[in-house]
Amino acid sequence: MTVTTPAGFRAAGVTAGLKTSGAPDVALVVNDGPDAAAAGVFTSNRVKAAPVLWSQQVLHGGEVRAVVLNSGGANACTGPAGFQDTHATAEHTAAELSTTTGREVGAGEVAVCSTGLIGERLPMDRLLPGVSAAVRELAGDGGDAAAEAIMTTDTRSKTTAVAGAGWTVGGMAKGAGMLAPAMATMLCVLTTDAVADPRALDAALRAATRVTFDRVDSDGCLSTNDTVLLLASGASGVAPSAAELTAAVTAACHDLAQQLIADAEGATKQIAIEVVGAAGEDDAVEVGRAVARNNLVKTALFGNDPNWGRILAAVGTTAAEFEPDAVDVAVNGVWVCRGGAAAEDRSKVDLTGRDVTIRIDLHAGTAAATVWTNDLSHAYVHENSAYST
Amino acid sequence: MTVTTPAGFRAAGVTAGLKTSGAPDVALVVNDGPDAAAAGVFTSNRVKAAPVLWSQQVLHGGEVRAVVLNSGGANACTGPAGFQDTHATAEHTAAELSTTTGREVGAGEVAVCSTGLIGERLPMDRLLPGVSAAVRELAGDGGDAAAEAIMTTDTRSKTTAVAGAGWTVGGMAKGAGMLAPAMATMLCVLTTDAVADPRALDAALRAATRVTFDRVDSDGCLSTNDTVLLLASGASGVAPSAAELTAAVTAACHDLAQQLIADAEGATKQIAIEVVGAAGEDDAVEVGRAVARNNLVKTALFGNDPNWGRILAAVGTTAAEFEPDAVDVAVNGVWVCRGGAAAEDRSKVDLTGRDVTIRIDLHAGTAAATVWTNDLSHAYVHENSAYST
Repeated sequence: MTVTTPAGFRAAGVTAGLKTSGAPDVALVVNDGPDAAAAGVFTSNRVKAAPVLWSQQVLHGGEVRAVVLNSGGANACTGPAGFQDTHATAEHTAAELSTTTGREVGAGEVAVCSTGLIGERLPMDRLLPGVSAAVRELAGDGGDAAAEAIMTTDTRSKTTAVAGAGWTVGGMAKGAGMLAPAMATMLCVLTTDAVADPRALDAALRAATRVTFDRVDSDGCLSTNDTVLLLASGASGVAPSAAELTAAVTAACHDLAQQLIADAEGATKQIAIEVVGAAGEDDAVEVGRAVARNNLVKTALFGNDPNWGRILAAVGTTAAEFEPDAVDVAVNGVWVCRGGAAAEDRSKVDLTGRDVTIRIDLHAGTAAATVWTNDLSHAYVHENSAYST
Repeated sequence: MTVTTPAGFRAAGVTAGLKTSGAPDVALVVNDGPDAAAAGVFTSNRVKAAPVLWSQQVLHGGEVRAVVLNSGGANACTGPAGFQDTHATAEHTAAELSTTTGREVGAGEVAVCSTGLIGERLPMDRLLPGVSAAVRELAGDGGDAAAEAIMTTDTRSKTTAVAGAGWTVGGMAKGAGMLAPAMATMLCVLTTDAVADPRALDAALRAATRVTFDRVDSDGCLSTNDTVLLLASGASGVAPSAAELTAAVTAACHDLAQQLIADAEGATKQIAIEVVGAAGEDDAVEVGRAVARNNLVKTALFGNDPNWGRILAAVGTTAAEFEPDAVDVAVNGVWVCRGGAAAEDRSKVDLTGRDVTIRIDLHAGTAAATVWTNDLSHAYVHENSAYST
């Protein structure tokens, strides 16, 4: 149920001492082939961390032999020296892998991901020995250890596996805050033993992230380090159709995205905002995102208050096609607002559970989209004010 | 120091029983002339409350004899019946004023403002007697009572006065949450005894709100009821120049906007985000607003953490012209970030006081703008989850 579930992959997670907590903080995922096809999507934040800039270059080649990931430091806003650190990490990983496997691996085939505090250099004197240790620990069942080593404020590791016909997709992800991906989420590595070229992988990955990670909006804050990578080993010998590959990658991304929202910092509610009757899918996403980002909606739900007026006020800030006096809103199945005004009794809404569904009918067309978010709680404020993350 | 400071105005604030707290909840401001020129700016939220739709029509005529305001209910998302309630309120106010003053006032000269919970009808059986009481209580020193009667979650009333040469501008405002005006703030009435036609008032008011209320962003949530009105009685007999009028109205708006931010729900910090070196003023405002709306920046400041990495991550979400490796950031005068990377020691930053200044130099031009916001605290979450507002 992780990145080593598909054939052709080994992984490891070790403690290098980057985190003061002493928890594991360096992960490595290696594609033993026969293929090394890969695709990636990255944060749309214009302030991009050094490992994002590096990995974007690596992905241009369409081949990735290994992904080295660290928690305990984002290596973002660290200037040219930070980029050198990423480069050195890739070089070191490539050299260690070349030595131990006897097969030449170039730094240009090693993607790098980092997560943690922005603005501080990584302690390279600890990171590089950690990479060496991870290379020694590589194992065909190392996926769980790798998933654990990329956690930051996550309370649990996130892994997945989706079975195809004779091939599988596996994956891991991390992320609990600064979680409003736009092209990707914090960090995610997907693996598959399917036979697929970089172009097919790229198409499947973009289609999958567009309707999963890109529709998660926990706190409206877009990270500098978001990275989703998809690596194909071809070890199954099976070449799925584009539709099959996209379906499996989408299922894996959906599973991981839901795990991210379920573990969002301080959340007490897991909220699906289903926008229907939209003139187009973009309108539906814009409306869903505006509601997901509205602090007054999020605090109301934390307080078990089905405050549909705040929802309508959020919808009104968008450029989507709708008439204010035609909008219906249901909270957990109760249509508290019809035609832009009060309808069913709000006291009928049961908000005692963790799952909340807000359904917004714009009555402007037939398109629909769902955006996932969570509430805004005291614990979120505490976690993000008491610690630098 | 309020709406009755300029000559030609009377005001009142009374308790009609709209609020369960028993606090004053109906205010009235009357322009006794000789002129009745007026201008107004309103929320850009597409979901507009009934009183906003009504008052926009009234302002088309360029003349306002009275403004009737109520707290205890926003009359937003109340459908055609809610609009009828607003119309009835204006009619009743006009009739009562016609009777008591002996001068005919039409409903089309009465602006209406409402604030409170969205989605519920106003109790007209209490509101209309309250309006009658307010008419009876009208006084040349009634400005303070009026300012008190429009408060909702505000902890104090907000009033101002700015002296011109032989004329003055007075004002009052309310607003503590759902406070991210775009064309106006929650509710604000400005008065002046200057001689000025509606066109001159409109120009002055738009110029003033653009650089004051429109640059306040407390919680990113745009209200359905935002209204700013400017009434001129001409009672001073002095006709200031356009520049003089704009300067005085801007000073009054600035003062009230600062009072709004100072009283923002749950705030422990009053934050000025000064963006300089921008390619254009729009870029500066966009960057300032993105930082003001970033929950991670706001929680960090609540925790006295000069987390410039979160600031840079927020800047990176904008379309403003800048190079990520050229941005400088100072927090309370300490340049913790230079060229997009760590500079002065962040431990030098003193965040123990209430006032915080974040200065962001984009190094992309010569334009500048300041956006004002506050931190995100436990008290904000409490206030907006424990009560429907």
